[in-house]
Amino acid sequence: MSESIHEECGVFGVFGEMDSDVALQAYVALYALQHRGQESCGIAVNDDGLIHYHRDVGLVPEVFTHEVLSKLGTGNMAVGHVRYSTAGNHNRANAQPLVVRHRKGTMVLAHNGNLINAAQLREELEMQGAIFHSTTDTEVMSHVIIRARLESSSIEEAISRSMNKIQGAYSQVIMSPQKMIAVRDPKGFRPLCMGKLGESVVFASESCALDGIGASFVRDIDPGEIVIVTRDSEGKVQVRSDRTHCGEKGNLCVFEFVYFARPDSVVQGVTVHNARVRAGMLLAREHPVQADVVIGVPDSGLDAAMGYARESGIPYGLGFIKNRYVGRTFIQPTQGERDAAVRIKLNAIDETVRGKRVVMIDDSIVRGTTSWRLVKLLRDAGATEVHVRISAPPFLHPCYFGTDIDSRDKLIANRLTVDQIAQRMGVDSLGYISVEGVNSIAKGASCGFCDGCFTGHYPLPEPKSIPKNKFEQKISESRSRKEDDD
Amino acid sequence: MSESIHEECGVFGVFGEMDSDVALQAYVALYALQHRGQESCGIAVNDDGLIHYHRDVGLVPEVFTHEVLSKLGTGNMAVGHVRYSTAGNHNRANAQPLVVRHRKGTMVLAHNGNLINAAQLREELEMQGAIFHSTTDTEVMSHVIIRARLESSSIEEAISRSMNKIQGAYSQVIMSPQKMIAVRDPKGFRPLCMGKLGESVVFASESCALDGIGASFVRDIDPGEIVIVTRDSEGKVQVRSDRTHCGEKGNLCVFEFVYFARPDSVVQGVTVHNARVRAGMLLAREHPVQADVVIGVPDSGLDAAMGYARESGIPYGLGFIKNRYVGRTFIQPTQGERDAAVRIKLNAIDETVRGKRVVMIDDSIVRGTTSWRLVKLLRDAGATEVHVRISAPPFLHPCYFGTDIDSRDKLIANRLTVDQIAQRMGVDSLGYISVEGVNSIAKGASCGFCDGCFTGHYPLPEPKSIPKNKFEQKISESRSRKEDDD
Amino acid sequence: MSESIHEECGVFGVFGEMDSDVALQAYVALYALQHRGQESCGIAVNDDGLIHYHRDVGLVPEVFTHEVLSKLGTGNMAVGHVRYSTAGNHNRANAQPLVVRHRKGTMVLAHNGNLINAAQLREELEMQGAIFHSTTDTEVMSHVIIRARLESSSIEEAISRSMNKIQGAYSQVIMSPQKMIAVRDPKGFRPLCMGKLGESVVFASESCALDGIGASFVRDIDPGEIVIVTRDSEGKVQVRSDRTHCGEKGNLCVFEFVYFARPDSVVQGVTVHNARVRAGMLLAREHPVQADVVIGVPDSGLDAAMGYARESGIPYGLGFIKNRYVGRTFIQPTQGERDAAVRIKLNAIDETVRGKRVVMIDDSIVRGTTSWRLVKLLRDAGATEVHVRISAPPFLHPCYFGTDIDSRDKLIANRLTVDQIAQRMGVDSLGYISVEGVNSIAKGASCGFCDGCFTGHYPLPEPKSIPKNKFEQKISESRSRKEDDD
Amino acid sequence: MSESIHEECGVFGVFGEMDSDVALQAYVALYALQHRGQESCGIAVNDDGLIHYHRDVGLVPEVFTHEVLSKLGTGNMAVGHVRYSTAGNHNRANAQPLVVRHRKGTMVLAHNGNLINAAQLREELEMQGAIFHSTTDTEVMSHVIIRARLESSSIEEAISRSMNKIQGAYSQVIMSPQKMIAVRDPKGFRPLCMGKLGESVVFASESCALDGIGASFVRDIDPGEIVIVTRDSEGKVQVRSDRTHCGEKGNLCVFEFVYFARPDSVVQGVTVHNARVRAGMLLAREHPVQADVVIGVPDSGLDAAMGYARESGIPYGLGFIKNRYVGRTFIQPTQGERDAAVRIKLNAIDETVRGKRVVMIDDSIVRGTTSWRLVKLLRDAGATEVHVRISAPPFLHPCYFGTDIDSRDKLIANRLTVDQIAQRMGVDSLGYISVEGVNSIAKGASCGFCDGCFTGHYPLPEPKSIPKNKFEQKISESRSRKEDDD
Repeated sequence: MSESIHEECGVFGVFGEMDSDVALQAYVALYALQHRGQESCGIAVNDDGLIHYHRDVGLVPEVFTHEVLSKLGTGNMAVGHVRYSTAGNHNRANAQPLVVRHRKGTMVLAHNGNLINAAQLREELEMQGAIFHSTTDTEVMSHVIIRARLESSSIEEAISRSMNKIQGAYSQVIMSPQKMIAVRDPKGFRPLCMGKLGESVVFASESCALDGIGASFVRDIDPGEIVIVTRDSEGKVQVRSDRTHCGEKGNLCVFEFVYFARPDSVVQGVTVHNARVRAGMLLAREHPVQADVVIGVPDSGLDAAMGYARESGIPYGLGFIKNRYVGRTFIQPTQGERDAAVRIKLNAIDETVRGKRVVMIDDSIVRGTTSWRLVKLLRDAGATEVHVRISAPPFLHPCYFGTDIDSRDKLIANRLTVDQIAQRMGVDSLGYISVEGVNSIAKGASCGFCDGCFTGHYPLPEPKSIPKNKFEQKISESRSRKEDDD
Repeated sequence: MSESIHEECGVFGVFGEMDSDVALQAYVALYALQHRGQESCGIAVNDDGLIHYHRDVGLVPEVFTHEVLSKLGTGNMAVGHVRYSTAGNHNRANAQPLVVRHRKGTMVLAHNGNLINAAQLREELEMQGAIFHSTTDTEVMSHVIIRARLESSSIEEAISRSMNKIQGAYSQVIMSPQKMIAVRDPKGFRPLCMGKLGESVVFASESCALDGIGASFVRDIDPGEIVIVTRDSEGKVQVRSDRTHCGEKGNLCVFEFVYFARPDSVVQGVTVHNARVRAGMLLAREHPVQADVVIGVPDSGLDAAMGYARESGIPYGLGFIKNRYVGRTFIQPTQGERDAAVRIKLNAIDETVRGKRVVMIDDSIVRGTTSWRLVKLLRDAGATEVHVRISAPPFLHPCYFGTDIDSRDKLIANRLTVDQIAQRMGVDSLGYISVEGVNSIAKGASCGFCDGCFTGHYPLPEPKSIPKNKFEQKISESRSRKEDDD
Repeated sequence: MSESIHEECGVFGVFGEMDSDVALQAYVALYALQHRGQESCGIAVNDDGLIHYHRDVGLVPEVFTHEVLSKLGTGNMAVGHVRYSTAGNHNRANAQPLVVRHRKGTMVLAHNGNLINAAQLREELEMQGAIFHSTTDTEVMSHVIIRARLESSSIEEAISRSMNKIQGAYSQVIMSPQKMIAVRDPKGFRPLCMGKLGESVVFASESCALDGIGASFVRDIDPGEIVIVTRDSEGKVQVRSDRTHCGEKGNLCVFEFVYFARPDSVVQGVTVHNARVRAGMLLAREHPVQADVVIGVPDSGLDAAMGYARESGIPYGLGFIKNRYVGRTFIQPTQGERDAAVRIKLNAIDETVRGKRVVMIDDSIVRGTTSWRLVKLLRDAGATEVHVRISAPPFLHPCYFGTDIDSRDKLIANRLTVDQIAQRMGVDSLGYISVEGVNSIAKGASCGFCDGCFTGHYPLPEPKSIPKNKFEQKISESRSRKEDDD
Repeated sequence: MSESIHEECGVFGVFGEMDSDVALQAYVALYALQHRGQESCGIAVNDDGLIHYHRDVGLVPEVFTHEVLSKLGTGNMAVGHVRYSTAGNHNRANAQPLVVRHRKGTMVLAHNGNLINAAQLREELEMQGAIFHSTTDTEVMSHVIIRARLESSSIEEAISRSMNKIQGAYSQVIMSPQKMIAVRDPKGFRPLCMGKLGESVVFASESCALDGIGASFVRDIDPGEIVIVTRDSEGKVQVRSDRTHCGEKGNLCVFEFVYFARPDSVVQGVTVHNARVRAGMLLAREHPVQADVVIGVPDSGLDAAMGYARESGIPYGLGFIKNRYVGRTFIQPTQGERDAAVRIKLNAIDETVRGKRVVMIDDSIVRGTTSWRLVKLLRDAGATEVHVRISAPPFLHPCYFGTDIDSRDKLIANRLTVDQIAQRMGVDSLGYISVEGVNSIAKGASCGFCDGCFTGHYPLPEPKSIPKNKFEQKISESRSRKEDDD
């Protein structure tokens, strides 16, 4: 129910046997990664050097019908991508994976993240005559890699060289005619893991995609690591790593644990569901309250609610029912229809809350309007008190690393104090987890965290100006810029 | 995840102000009733005697786009219907509400239930020259009512007369040019309730639809009751009842509480969620077991799992994650793809079950194959023991009253003992709730129950032969019968 | 380019071998009959008593995709229907063939024509309790036949009996589980012919459909004739006729020759193209003029233009080019867009008309606005004089027999004299063919003609009042009527 | 009915008032140019420097619905493109106009033609690090122009410089933020003309598009000419020419007159219809025959048939009727269905040809199979003799300049003599127009011709090897190439 924090992508790759059903594997895996992006999706199949691909706007089962998947055929490798959704925006041109032809063949690139020096790189490239067909970082990156390729003896060398130039968050799967390469930026902002299915090597943003295809988890890709998969002369699959850019512990986005990742995924050694339960437990300690029932906002608030209940001893109850069939409704954002939209999605179970003091757990407050509606549903259902607990600290700073938490003026926490927010939402109390708290929910994780959106302290130097055109890429197939001198 | 028990329909009606947005209200209400039928849906709007309608195969948001809803326009009454889904069956001809023209005008009929003497009635009608365009009970009923209408002074009198002829389960909303009539069969097999939204009177299969449109619940329609809504000469809305056919306590389908109805609905005074929690508590008493965690099969097993945990003291855990984006996938029922389909839908959270003795709660076992796959997911995730508890008794008998529990040979419980089923599923123990147990989960309900599918004892005499063509209506727009003598 | 005169339907039937590809034959035949109706189409296949059918709004190739046609499967009989188009009107409920189930099995009915006593029949039927699902004559007819069937020993006897009741124009193909029956009203208003393809017997509105499937023409069905096709006990196809209602010479709609039928069809022994050429020759004799070139308005004015040129000795030229790709454009009837719509459809060839006196031949003038635009195109292209010749007399009277020439006030000829029309169109002269002339264009035809729309003299008594609801059936899936007494 | 000779594109541009309805103008113009390409289409609107565009697979009215066109909005310039159709090939990635962003802004490019040195240019560009997203010449060209742009002071200078590099056929409309530029290669292989509509300047492949939007024809763009349209500081539209690359008389594809262009277009001063009539007259002189009727194969053989009739004195008759509704049918190329497909498209009018000696005029013979079927239709209809006359010489050589006449082994004329073809087609005689003849059909045209497909003599040096990947671009969104060294 969060209003606007979106992960920007999910990636997948499989390097398998010749003529195997890699397209179906990608399909199932992207289905499991669908929560990381609902705008568009794509699959590219490599059939011994020949690339077939399909990309379109829509959910995985909408885009990949039986017929479309059949046409992709079999192959020995596949790369898949899901991209996040913004309402009403059908931007087919930005769908991934990107497929480009160059001096040394065809390169396929699936990217999750965000570059902070994309604008500068783009300008440099344009000065040298480069042409762009989209506004994506992915296209910028492809230019950097392919230029590096001209003076490199291999695609992996080109990738390694390009890492000296590009700055930001990138978890990628790259496919050349004969190789598959997985790469994660030196800070490891976005997750990326490796699995095994028989002889096949698999890469995915989250382990739930490995489960989806029946693969077993091998390990996370390390921050800065380049993993190269090839087939040797005897046809055996070889996996090796270029660790030149490794060395840092990494700064995984902590919001992956709070909201983005699927509860059944294991990220850097920690089950996401458990991290969320722990967030709830910490919330109970940091913001205790006398109450009769703890409820969660479906789906992502449910785990933390279980934790709050467990720690506080207040019974856990089912406060809201989410409509299983909610999909794309035409309901428009007029005030009346926005109310209808919320009521279509969620309904309170009166008996759970009537006459009770209720603790309601959610994962975040963005603009505050959805939370306000939920509180109203509870009041209407007879709750006597409503105490809201949020399993993330307030968003106070933009994110430059692959999510859309970045328009300061839309963030309610930027304009109002916690008390003011509580008042506006009409709640009896409001508590956010502390920054220290959120940093400990994934205790035991094999990496450090980025909590820049809460603290303003980023693992990389903040870009001087927020790239003003950053969200241009969300514009429907249209481009703009003034020509200077002709 | 149940394989094949389906409710056959949901109905809705609103009698409101002139030129009000009754179509949008029907849209929102049908969205809330979508779980009662996913095959097709329809809305008929009455604009002061003029009927506009649209029906098609698909989910509510698919069929009712902004454009389609706009074309329906405003009006003073609307009737809506959802019909259940059978895979791959696009039977547009059977979509409801039925709209028929007759001597006295136009009648719109939305029906939930099943007649047990439809075949005989149909034969009688055909002897008198009646023509049928579909194979639905709804069309049979419309003939009975309209013939009765010829000798009645009002539509409600015709409905009352027709109730002497028709036998079975029927919860209906009927619209004539000037009136709206809600009727429930004398046994009250299917739910039907009434609400209020300002001056408007609303009818719906479940109260969650009232919540959806912001209406308040007034009461359940009684078994056998005919409720007539009209506008008097001064334009005030009048509601009155014909209780000629009332008198029995009623026999509501108990499976409505176990599975069909939405947890947030209140049916005959009982919140469905609570009935399910109670089912879990009873299960814990009837089939206790030493275990480490209780998990539910999403979505309908979750409530009972909470009850089992509460009663047994065994911790409640999140064992499965359901993919939020599961919709219509092309995945076909080959063995391999069936496995993939289950993995797309559900994934186990390893950490919840690894090394643990698990109690898994589901609402029913139909063919047993899905349950088998779920158990396997748990074993693969490291569960040391798996104990399955089912919140309904075994299905041993067909249902004649509006669900599709009726092919005896498909029901695993008909062919195998509980021990044999447990063995086939590979579980350490298996326990079904008792018949007495299930009859008490909705304790306090203002009606009795039908448990015929568990006991073979039905509130109405069992039809001599199972109407052999009962499911013909699921055949895609095609009909069959041999002509006798020409 | 005629603005609004439409034939209402085309019908087709094939009685063939078991398991033959009758659906594909129907598809190809309906394609050839598409000019008789573009709103909706349908095919019903009879597979040894089992009926499969599909009907929808759209053109034949749009509705019958490969997948849809495959699902219809093979069979031993098929009936097909095309229905005419009114812009923006998607009335799926009125699509044919009608498939109804009754006492004696299933009846499939494809109808071309219009009953003049449908309203009375409908009232009688409703008095007896009949229910209607549409507003079509076809449904009325099916009730009459099926009631007659109750007291008849065969379907053909029932059809013969029903012919005593129904009055008007009807060319039909009817299919029972074992038989195919073709019937034409005693006046023979609409065409219907029979063909042969190997052992198969074929019926179609026009012979071009026989050509389309490679069948040979056998003969026209006589006015009043009922042709019954069955298979005898040895499996041989038997064709016999009930000629009880025969006896009149018939009154085929003469506008079939002028406009409706396809030029390559042979109707009652006359090739339509030749009748049109003859119309042009007669026009040249009745309305000679000094000119430099004769051009036709595509497509239906071209044949008459050839005739005018041949008779007058004035050279025939290509004056207009029609855009081959014109289909469904969103262009709306605002003044500006209407101009654009005409320019999209037709363009003048300047060189043909520049500096010349032009004779332009069209088949009819309805509201006059299209003709006006065409004349303007010619003037703009440099024509010095424009003389318009129309190969039909002025429409002065409504048609009750299956076309939509019936809104008197829309017909320009009803409001203005020929001179006034000429002036309004801005032409140098205007001449319509005479009534005698049009009656002689199909000289040698084996039947008489109906020219009621020109003369007001009809072969059947004119209905007292124009059935006021006649065009209700064009309303999108919506119905209306006030209820009287409840 | 020609089996496979296709024009590859049509282009359009309008430079108009601010906020004018340039998108609708492009829509109407592309509708008129639809015959030049049916695979895909696109429109880019320039709203004072901001570019909005939409491109997709499909016909103009399919792709540009009311909604899509509305979203493009108003603007001061627009460029449109249609691309030709190959069955079953939905190649969205190759749809035009191309929109690319570069150092100096955004460039929009719509191209008709074919470069003969594209492969070499591409290789050079790749050596410098260029990346390609498609396999089109258009993308190659955009790279050449944009690299030239880096060292040019204006876009028109860049285009002029790029013309020193690119070789082949190209008629283009290019749009920069502030300018519109039309350019035609120095040989003028493909047509391109300029018109005027009020203050607006319009460019189009053919004059029929000018007529379509109500614009008046100004002149053809000269071979080698670059026309630049800008708005001066007072807001007045300025048109000027760069004639650096002009000088040659030009070599327009003569097949534009025979088949590609629309009959109502005026190309280089000659009305296409008249050129075709003249082709028929020349055929009558070159290949006279004793016969009773001359018929044409619709649509493009009709004009030449009129000419043959006029010159020979043999009456012109309507031999075939073309189904007006033929669109995309699923009919597959099995032998049986191919026959059905021809019968769906065309039918003979028996009375025109029965018992007669027939001259049938067509514009070309490619594989000969369609012609064979047409001859059979005539024989079946009773023609006693069939004499075929072709208004183009035999195709003996590939086309490198923008059509798909280039697979030598598919061309029947390459494998068989005229007598052998006649025999195979089962005709009594067969005559092709001579090369001299076809070169004189557009007598008076303000340019020379390319007749390379007939003679093997090309205006430009023939590429050493036929670019082997030339038709790769027809492959559905898929790419291939082996990587060399990594």
